[in-house]
Amino acid sequence: MSSSTPIVTIGNAIVDIIARADDKFILDQGMQKSAMNLIDAERASSLYDAIGPATEISGGSAANTAVGIVACGGKAGFIGKISEDMLGRIFSHDIRAAGVVFTPVYAEDNQTASSTILVTPDSERTMNTHLGASITLGPYDMDEALIAGAEWVYLEGYLFDAPRGPDCYARVAEIAGANGTKVAVSLSDAWCVERHHAALSAFLADHTDLVFGNEDEILTLFPGSFDDAVRQISTMVEEAAITQGAGGSLAVRGVDKARVEADSDVRVVDTTGAGDLYAGGYLYARQKGHDLETAARIATIAASEVISHIGARPQEDLTKLTARFDR
Amino acid sequence: MSSSTPIVTIGNAIVDIIARADDKFILDQGMQKSAMNLIDAERASSLYDAIGPATEISGGSAANTAVGIVACGGKAGFIGKISEDMLGRIFSHDIRAAGVVFTPVYAEDNQTASSTILVTPDSERTMNTHLGASITLGPYDMDEALIAGAEWVYLEGYLFDAPRGPDCYARVAEIAGANGTKVAVSLSDAWCVERHHAALSAFLADHTDLVFGNEDEILTLFPGSFDDAVRQISTMVEEAAITQGAGGSLAVRGVDKARVEADSDVRVVDTTGAGDLYAGGYLYARQKGHDLETAARIATIAASEVISHIGARPQEDLTKLTARFDR
Repeated sequence: MSSSTPIVTIGNAIVDIIARADDKFILDQGMQKSAMNLIDAERASSLYDAIGPATEISGGSAANTAVGIVACGGKAGFIGKISEDMLGRIFSHDIRAAGVVFTPVYAEDNQTASSTILVTPDSERTMNTHLGASITLGPYDMDEALIAGAEWVYLEGYLFDAPRGPDCYARVAEIAGANGTKVAVSLSDAWCVERHHAALSAFLADHTDLVFGNEDEILTLFPGSFDDAVRQISTMVEEAAITQGAGGSLAVRGVDKARVEADSDVRVVDTTGAGDLYAGGYLYARQKGHDLETAARIATIAASEVISHIGARPQEDLTKLTARFDR
Repeated sequence: MSSSTPIVTIGNAIVDIIARADDKFILDQGMQKSAMNLIDAERASSLYDAIGPATEISGGSAANTAVGIVACGGKAGFIGKISEDMLGRIFSHDIRAAGVVFTPVYAEDNQTASSTILVTPDSERTMNTHLGASITLGPYDMDEALIAGAEWVYLEGYLFDAPRGPDCYARVAEIAGANGTKVAVSLSDAWCVERHHAALSAFLADHTDLVFGNEDEILTLFPGSFDDAVRQISTMVEEAAITQGAGGSLAVRGVDKARVEADSDVRVVDTTGAGDLYAGGYLYARQKGHDLETAARIATIAASEVISHIGARPQEDLTKLTARFDR
């Protein structure tokens, strides 16, 4: 099957506001370290006043994944909602300039989502997301033609935090089911899994072909041992790709398994986007027909590039870095 | 003499929009490479559509210098004009969060200045500046109490590009002269020196204690040999600090001379802000009472840090890097 946009990702359209901070600041501000904390507009404003000098750079989990797919040499589209403000213009510019198919859907009376990301000296990122316009994403925003024409549709778990996020998931399942589009889901964040445990589990069991998650996330889904959680998730979903930070990653599909080491040479500067780019590289490779191990290798290279600098989008042409595996 | 804000810098308040580009793009767009090109709002908008994914980060030459002074452990204030828009909020946040004294002066009916900076593979930056709100800076914006209370006031040459820039210079000379505040001027850019040759020369001769410039800039001021230009500028102004890129720098004050090598270990990523941070380190050190050589060494360290990453503001605590010279 050939389609002009073989992979479509759906998620919150966010511009990141990235600043350095120490652990004491994270603690004093009552943030959950290394997690995605949801905040309202007022808190976003007071937090901005409290942080140090910042850099503004487009982000958003599924949006980063779409950019990663294109950076690997693939084609991808993105569905998300912005506002007609400065941050919306930045978001729209950056994702389109990166080569992703994106037709802006504008929310009224709301500002474009932003995430104040604090990078601590250990290179961990703590996110404080004001969902703004992106929270208004609803089932009618799910572009039927784009999803129906794709081989894969990818949803971020964070979408469940929007009031109509569950409706978006349901609508995507409907379109995908009717058109043979395969469904991938990212677990996004352990706290997000905890917030939406039942709904996420049901969607994984009923409508998902491929799931992405890190160790914390799958252990929140299936508390117990790691091996046991892997067994359970690979029974629930046809294919799973699980990242373990410096411990590398594991791809599982039935009896087929591939374990790939992390790149120990990379100088970690900012872990923002690591999981998003892993998913981007993996989806790109699987859509192209590569096996699990090759997909995990390409995914690891994409993730390694993004953690070597500030910001969650690749700065280098990933095709040069992945060429030895992507033949 | 002791003052709470011993150094005040004055210049265009700009947010940088930084993207990577190749030399062909610079050529096709008709830009003067490695220079500051002035563009209008319409051109800024069409250029934004043409460039790749970007990062937004506060800049502005004299503003970067003020941040550099504080990063070295000093105290500085900044005078510049923004608009009450998103970029204005970013600019104001970043400079204040960096510890610089800044009381925003807002322009009406104009957007905050931005500079679309294209970084080519050779790490050179080509700037495309839309002066917007910053162009409305006028003599009444020159904060008399702040300048009168300072030991040094620092003006960027770029200010001459604003219609009332020459009036700002004249007003600063008046305040500084009446209060014993010493005056430093940066030549900013060779093309800027060419545009305002007569006015800049007169100000240097009549009102300037310390001038900063690179080789191109002083050779535009005094065409001929480098040695001859150095002789002429050090006759015109009491003290001069001249940068020569990888060739290091030279500080001259009468018969007193100091030559300092560039740091050959630094991996150059983006040269934006090199001159601004050199000036920041130098002014900080001279105000503190250091000699020319120590000032040039501290200035070199500040410049080296800023060219090792994207963006024109320091990302590290410069006091740690300069500690061996700054006793």
